[in-house]
Amino acid sequence: MLDAKALHDNAIIFDGLVIAKWNRDLFLDMKKGGLTAANCTVSVWEGFKGTIDNIVEMNQFFEENNDLIIPVTKTSDIAKAKAEGKTGIILGFQNANAFEDQIGYVEIFKKLGVGIVQMAYNTQNLVGTGCYERDGGLSGFGREIVAEMNRVGIMCDLSHVGPQTSIEVIEASTAPVCYSHCLPSGLKEHPRNKSDEELKFIADRNGFIGVTMFAPFLKKGIDSTVDDYVEAIDYVIDIAGEDCVGIGTDFTQGHDKAFFDMLTHDKGYARNLTNFGKIVNPLGIRTIGEFPNLTACMVKHGWSEEKIRKVMGENWVNVLKTVWGE
Amino acid sequence: MLDAKALHDNAIIFDGLVIAKWNRDLFLDMKKGGLTAANCTVSVWEGFKGTIDNIVEMNQFFEENNDLIIPVTKTSDIAKAKAEGKTGIILGFQNANAFEDQIGYVEIFKKLGVGIVQMAYNTQNLVGTGCYERDGGLSGFGREIVAEMNRVGIMCDLSHVGPQTSIEVIEASTAPVCYSHCLPSGLKEHPRNKSDEELKFIADRNGFIGVTMFAPFLKKGIDSTVDDYVEAIDYVIDIAGEDCVGIGTDFTQGHDKAFFDMLTHDKGYARNLTNFGKIVNPLGIRTIGEFPNLTACMVKHGWSEEKIRKVMGENWVNVLKTVWGE
Repeated sequence: MLDAKALHDNAIIFDGLVIAKWNRDLFLDMKKGGLTAANCTVSVWEGFKGTIDNIVEMNQFFEENNDLIIPVTKTSDIAKAKAEGKTGIILGFQNANAFEDQIGYVEIFKKLGVGIVQMAYNTQNLVGTGCYERDGGLSGFGREIVAEMNRVGIMCDLSHVGPQTSIEVIEASTAPVCYSHCLPSGLKEHPRNKSDEELKFIADRNGFIGVTMFAPFLKKGIDSTVDDYVEAIDYVIDIAGEDCVGIGTDFTQGHDKAFFDMLTHDKGYARNLTNFGKIVNPLGIRTIGEFPNLTACMVKHGWSEEKIRKVMGENWVNVLKTVWGE
Repeated sequence: MLDAKALHDNAIIFDGLVIAKWNRDLFLDMKKGGLTAANCTVSVWEGFKGTIDNIVEMNQFFEENNDLIIPVTKTSDIAKAKAEGKTGIILGFQNANAFEDQIGYVEIFKKLGVGIVQMAYNTQNLVGTGCYERDGGLSGFGREIVAEMNRVGIMCDLSHVGPQTSIEVIEASTAPVCYSHCLPSGLKEHPRNKSDEELKFIADRNGFIGVTMFAPFLKKGIDSTVDDYVEAIDYVIDIAGEDCVGIGTDFTQGHDKAFFDMLTHDKGYARNLTNFGKIVNPLGIRTIGEFPNLTACMVKHGWSEEKIRKVMGENWVNVLKTVWGE
């Protein structure tokens, strides 16, 4: 049997989506969990200026916590983080709203360190439509934004995007796109989960799937364990293959009810879109510090070392290398 | 035969859409044309702040030209303008973009004097979709905006809006809505023109139709005359009746090519959406100052005094009275 601890310590551990409360405690927990790098959300409903302000805050965190975290703008930064025993932070958006109506803002944010941007969050924006309302597809402006993201090297994320907009972004993008954090509706029906056909569609077009463990979208809900998470990852791998699947936990660690209320209301304050109920991560991986339990569980489920290394991090690094044009 | 000049001088002359270059020359031409009041565009692609800046500019015009123009926020201001021989200015938007993602901005703009707002301009925004791209309909946020416009008393305009979004705004609004400036596609097929069914749909639901004379959308294009304009108005009246039809010229007087390029590109600068070619208003009504020729032409076509008074202004005043909750 594989030595799970040694493997976890040695492997690249990549999380495709973390939207935690950024502070030193969180960065310490990332270190405890052996996290090599993560896509960290700095914009959901914010416009241009609000997002810049969030990036300013993250830059201060980089300065004050440079013993724990480093910025990631190329995949060699991920290797550097691993070598130094730190966690690499990729700035990511969960909404293209921060681009407002300016195509030129895409390059501005790329230069500020943004590597992954979700095209819409739950509802309609100028680019397309999210997964919680009728989806009219990718707009003409959205096509221009996709082309610009391709040009400057920002990955298109479709996790919270509606099915029609997703298909059209996958077809319009010349670079691989991702669902950075999703679960299969084959295990549980939910507007946020992706059907077998959707998973196959993105995988067949060089796309990528990060599997989340957000309890409300898991079959057993808040009674789920890390085993259920590994089962969900295997379900996706059965459809997409083991080379384009990775982790995208959706850790929300440290946030309070007001934060979730902000997420679940359109624009952060308008009509309510969904009710998650109680949110508890699966037993065994409730906190980022418990990340080694995920590797251990994969070992327990009989995964090969190669499969674990790929899914825990190498696959994400490879697809980012392509998207970022390295 | 009616005395056209006396009738024009005596009647309320209302223009449902003017997007001219605002300056004293223009206000002098409004006086020459005997224009009692007009819906004057102060926002197309601008966001909140850019629109506020445009309103600041218009406030300065009110100050410096108070011998010629007065602000209109209620229909009694229109009567006042008539009594004083001035032109009343209603601030209007051709795009809900100025509301950005803030429902509360609707009331802010109402308090600043905005009376009519078009839900989308040519392309998709947060509310719905314009007439130059695939139309996914009224968004959930758009429904909240319509309800708020109803509550504070701002008229929903659908002239540049797509067919599906238009249907859904007409159905969602509790107050009458309008096409402030449109032409019938029964006379010429064009994405900006409205079908007989669309004209009937809005009229049957207490809506309003302002008829434009923008040459590229008229049957004879730039060879049109004021007679063709009156013919188009009669075409619409045949469908909608003479109580919910008015004028909405779309005068662009004083603007240069750069301005039209701004209008015809998404967001004012992105991809090109349409090419108008040469723009010349119909012979006889090339400038606002020639407005009396329109009344004269209606007389020539045998219109009754009552019909002329209603179409030239009274119908608009009546519908605004309802929408503004007076």
